[in-house]
Amino acid sequence: MSRSVAERRAAILESLNQSGPRKVRELADELGVSAVTLRRDIEDLANQGTLVRKHGMAHPLSAEAPAPRKQPTVGLVVPHSDYYYDGIISGAKRACAEAGARLILGVSAYDQLTEMQQGRRLVANGVDGIVIAPTPNPETGLLSEKQESWLGSLTVPTVLMERPPSNAGPAAKLDSVTSAHAAGAAAAVRHLAELGHERIACLLIQGPNSAPIQAGYEEAVAILGLTSLGVVSEGRQGSVDAAPALHQLIKDGATALFIHNDQLATRALTWLQDAGTQVPRDVSIVGYDDVIAAYASVPLTSISPFRAHVGHRAVRLLLDRIQQAATPGESPFEAAEHIYLVPQLVERESTRPRK
Amino acid sequence: MSRSVAERRAAILESLNQSGPRKVRELADELGVSAVTLRRDIEDLANQGTLVRKHGMAHPLSAEAPAPRKQPTVGLVVPHSDYYYDGIISGAKRACAEAGARLILGVSAYDQLTEMQQGRRLVANGVDGIVIAPTPNPETGLLSEKQESWLGSLTVPTVLMERPPSNAGPAAKLDSVTSAHAAGAAAAVRHLAELGHERIACLLIQGPNSAPIQAGYEEAVAILGLTSLGVVSEGRQGSVDAAPALHQLIKDGATALFIHNDQLATRALTWLQDAGTQVPRDVSIVGYDDVIAAYASVPLTSISPFRAHVGHRAVRLLLDRIQQAATPGESPFEAAEHIYLVPQLVERESTRPRK
Repeated sequence: MSRSVAERRAAILESLNQSGPRKVRELADELGVSAVTLRRDIEDLANQGTLVRKHGMAHPLSAEAPAPRKQPTVGLVVPHSDYYYDGIISGAKRACAEAGARLILGVSAYDQLTEMQQGRRLVANGVDGIVIAPTPNPETGLLSEKQESWLGSLTVPTVLMERPPSNAGPAAKLDSVTSAHAAGAAAAVRHLAELGHERIACLLIQGPNSAPIQAGYEEAVAILGLTSLGVVSEGRQGSVDAAPALHQLIKDGATALFIHNDQLATRALTWLQDAGTQVPRDVSIVGYDDVIAAYASVPLTSISPFRAHVGHRAVRLLLDRIQQAATPGESPFEAAEHIYLVPQLVERESTRPRK
Repeated sequence: MSRSVAERRAAILESLNQSGPRKVRELADELGVSAVTLRRDIEDLANQGTLVRKHGMAHPLSAEAPAPRKQPTVGLVVPHSDYYYDGIISGAKRACAEAGARLILGVSAYDQLTEMQQGRRLVANGVDGIVIAPTPNPETGLLSEKQESWLGSLTVPTVLMERPPSNAGPAAKLDSVTSAHAAGAAAAVRHLAELGHERIACLLIQGPNSAPIQAGYEEAVAILGLTSLGVVSEGRQGSVDAAPALHQLIKDGATALFIHNDQLATRALTWLQDAGTQVPRDVSIVGYDDVIAAYASVPLTSISPFRAHVGHRAVRLLLDRIQQAATPGESPFEAAEHIYLVPQLVERESTRPRK
């Protein structure tokens, strides 16, 4: 019968605590798992600081180091662990390492029920605080009343990541750390304007970040006195694509496109190529996310949210809150904080001065 | 018994000076604090140049170090030094004291030319960075293109306070620390809703913060399913007052008023009294700013922006930037940050459950 990863890892720690340092293979035999699986477990547990690897053996903490004093444990709940979130996780890991804190990861697979289970389990397991990127409504990007109630009721300090709470909801007193997507979109438009482009169109994939990104595009077009050729919204994966609308924009005289995100931008490159339009000779493109932008057929200039910084900042803020909770009254500075980190523009080959 | 941060840090320095270089964990045990707290202290003290970190140990300066890093000088430019800004200045002073930095204050008297002169003079006098609350357009709350150009061209690290830059303007890459006024307004409405009020009106003084405050009021009324009795905008000082509109709101069945700011709320108290309407018996009031709220004829429940926290946070962020500028490439975390601090509600006698 298969145990969960968490159960298996609990068994590893229990065995080490009872029997002292063990060879990896012995421990694998004892627990009836493969050596490969066990090595992976031990690596993760060592990274979390819950055991120590030394000379090919796993050591319980107690045998090795005097128990570290109140090493805080941070729970991190993210929708998944790749594409966008790998960077966030790496920043969170770094912040924990710098502070001597332990990190426990939960993955919600974009499912709100799973997310709540993960959160409850982390609290039950005694984490000192939680950083969570809750799964929003996929269309509006907002959290539901039910989610906010749950988030607001967690009994440990909680920092929201990439989704600030609504101002009037039950999670309004939680801190948040979010990429400033409106500022990111505006930076894309400003870059194109500085290259001399005046007729700029926007292609948006429908998703939780559409609203701030569209707002940033429109703010920038207005402030910079440019002509917007309109916003084309691309449906979710699998729906009819935006190619015809894109061709129309080029006919209407667009010399530059701001496209959210890079996946859609790489598809747009193909559509344009099929129609004989060359990038960047005929039209410049700025993409968004900067995860795959460097690997497009024309390497894309792209807006790059500071993913690692978001994870790092959220954990730092949480550690501050954990410390404040442990020493009440010591800090007079306890306002909830909403922190927005402005993405940067990374220039590659898809943008060029207007002819 | 808990020591203050300053006392704890003094104890750290004293111990190092007496006993020489120490391991972090040893020192934590000796002082009876957690390793996390101690690491943070040591990091801050090292950043201030009052001790040296090396090989996981803390070294006293005399035993180890070349000349301590120069004491940084922070320039602070505010529109004036009382009412709202005295709190901000006190937080900035505290942050400078904690970090061993020097503070130089400039006051612009809400004049944009004076503001620029103050800024230039501070730079000429060799400040290492500037925190500035720029004077916005008094109606829109926005900074002008000219101001943003000037702010963006300052040759030292600069943090904007209470006025974030526009996303597409020439100051877009500056950091900012701002009171989250929309969240403050929403907290007022939520408090009234929790007291059972369903028909809530809003009285706003015309000024640079009107837009976010009105937005927060409207967001909260919508999310909480309340009835808005509309927003009455009061003109600038000296214009015809809003008394007739206020009496109409009461006739229309308003049982609660959210009034920005406390000065207008104290005038509203008089108007209501003149008409025989008693606060809080007949109508509840939440004010805004919490500078004079406690001294109104009926002490006002009010929304209290964390003024000292805003000043403290802005200086801390600036000191981080000054350090990053001095050690380029050392920190990978350099995204511009826009930090919003959520005000708190302070309950007094002007609010009561709806009959």
